[in-house]
Amino acid sequence: MGKYVTITEIAKQLNLSHSTVSRALSNHPRISKKTCDIVQKLANELGYQANSTAHHLSKGESQIIAIIVPQLSLHFFSKVVEGIQKVLKETEYSLLLFSTDESLEEEIEAVKTCIKHRVDGVLVAISRETKTFDHFKQLLKHEVPMVFFDRVANFLPVPKVITNDYQASFDATDHLLKTGCKYIAHITGSINLNNSNNRLYGYLDALTSHEIKTRESLIHYYEFELSSIDEFLEKTLKKYPNLDGLFVFNDYVAHYAVNVLNKLGKRVPDDISVIGFSDEPVATYMSPKLSTVQQTAAKMGELAAQKIISILSKKEPMVSEKIIINPELILRETTKSLCDTADFSPK
Amino acid sequence: MGKYVTITEIAKQLNLSHSTVSRALSNHPRISKKTCDIVQKLANELGYQANSTAHHLSKGESQIIAIIVPQLSLHFFSKVVEGIQKVLKETEYSLLLFSTDESLEEEIEAVKTCIKHRVDGVLVAISRETKTFDHFKQLLKHEVPMVFFDRVANFLPVPKVITNDYQASFDATDHLLKTGCKYIAHITGSINLNNSNNRLYGYLDALTSHEIKTRESLIHYYEFELSSIDEFLEKTLKKYPNLDGLFVFNDYVAHYAVNVLNKLGKRVPDDISVIGFSDEPVATYMSPKLSTVQQTAAKMGELAAQKIISILSKKEPMVSEKIIINPELILRETTKSLCDTADFSPK
Repeated sequence: MGKYVTITEIAKQLNLSHSTVSRALSNHPRISKKTCDIVQKLANELGYQANSTAHHLSKGESQIIAIIVPQLSLHFFSKVVEGIQKVLKETEYSLLLFSTDESLEEEIEAVKTCIKHRVDGVLVAISRETKTFDHFKQLLKHEVPMVFFDRVANFLPVPKVITNDYQASFDATDHLLKTGCKYIAHITGSINLNNSNNRLYGYLDALTSHEIKTRESLIHYYEFELSSIDEFLEKTLKKYPNLDGLFVFNDYVAHYAVNVLNKLGKRVPDDISVIGFSDEPVATYMSPKLSTVQQTAAKMGELAAQKIISILSKKEPMVSEKIIINPELILRETTKSLCDTADFSPK
Repeated sequence: MGKYVTITEIAKQLNLSHSTVSRALSNHPRISKKTCDIVQKLANELGYQANSTAHHLSKGESQIIAIIVPQLSLHFFSKVVEGIQKVLKETEYSLLLFSTDESLEEEIEAVKTCIKHRVDGVLVAISRETKTFDHFKQLLKHEVPMVFFDRVANFLPVPKVITNDYQASFDATDHLLKTGCKYIAHITGSINLNNSNNRLYGYLDALTSHEIKTRESLIHYYEFELSSIDEFLEKTLKKYPNLDGLFVFNDYVAHYAVNVLNKLGKRVPDDISVIGFSDEPVATYMSPKLSTVQQTAAKMGELAAQKIISILSKKEPMVSEKIIINPELILRETTKSLCDTADFSPK
């Protein structure tokens, strides 16, 4: 609603025509040097700046890229956004932000607003509720480039930047097994989200590769109800008093689980080793410090932004492809080291 | 860059004029019902949506509000942004995001981009480096409504949403004194930032109100170098072996300080009580849980957004004013309770 200085205003103040001012601003040869100087001097004084948005909009470009995230205050997503901004700063694009509060309805609204603003591209991590994708198909209809990251819509023909959740979970579980754990429980996330599922499969396959029986009762599907963790761990410790490992899909929940285990009289890692996922700040703030899987958020943001810029500049087509980040295991204080447990290492 | 469906395209497919299609879309009385139906049917099929951005831009409105924050991945600022979005969701405005990485240069660039996009309003928390404000004066020249929050430019004639840092610090220090602490150190932030200064004054005045001598050597000006905390606490404990309280301007630094105190053989809160500031997630993740000052981020975002919306709708003028949030002290496990320490309470 600001009163941005316009060519009309400069023209009025100097009693010149709109076209003379417009030409004088771009040093048109048919305008005298004197007039150019007068116009440019006043334009500077008034802080005139060409309305490049209107100019680009008339060419069908808004110079805006939208990002839709489920919850900005999750550290992971704010780091993704920082990674995106790092890349966009080198370009002409600005970032329009939508945080959907994990709601499908909000996500649909966000897509409508993207269309309203004629954004040039959209970066998305879907909400927990999102099981239908018609709203994203609307964007495809308009040929708006899209890149999904982290929580992706598997069947849309667009690029997806993901963490190799399967391998990271396999490696985490494998480390627990190699340091002597035999009864390893797993807390996994919502079964709607592909990354939680991949983490579950990595856990299961690691057990199988060590010829350890997989048990349904050692798996808990966490649906964002913290008290369910207390119930699960209490029940599991009754059934498996030898429980010695726990792999959790998320650092916040892992931190909570460590506190529950302490309350139940178990020491971490002496009695039970614990590994989380994502290296959120909590992992280094808690004590003992949490062994976890590397944080890939900033990298993921950079890769998603680079991909969409590359599509926008027509260096690459928009096709269905997976860009995979291989995160590493970070061993801190909630796990035993391989040397301490040489006796248990697989023969 | 998307190929958004335009009136021109609908006109071309139906072999009608641009103005006929435009009128048919708005049920103009001079267009037959049949034509209106045909045009509207195709518009629906193609997913046509009026280019409201171009429409509003022509009236000098972009329907975009910009937010400029120093570092999005600080939990405080991502919560502020969530608070802002909660308010904007009820309006026609979308949010353009800039995270300046604590750099004045980036902040100046962000303001230029705001002008380029003809944003309707700007919400700002300044960077650590910002000591000059000419870039914001440019926005004022263009009469762009601005609201500052948390880290504000005191002398600009715009609304500012702030926490009552002084009172909160006074209350925190007062609690330490009332629970028997006599040698209370304070770690404060960059002296450039008004909120750090206000926290320092609150601490000093609380001591004075209890007739406790203030000592320069008990104050540490933290300049984002963690090792300086180790040095400060080691030096202070040598000089004041009776050190029994610590008030820190920030929860992350308070958490670090508690770990340093533990390493130096001090128990928290038995030997030394500690209070932080902001109620960041770390405060509840660490053990013992940190006593701290209430998080006001979401509330601050809501108030800043409500204020700018109110100015944009011309319900309020843009004037220099302070909107003050009074946060409360949250007592957890790093402080003693008043009952435990009745003997020490002031006579």
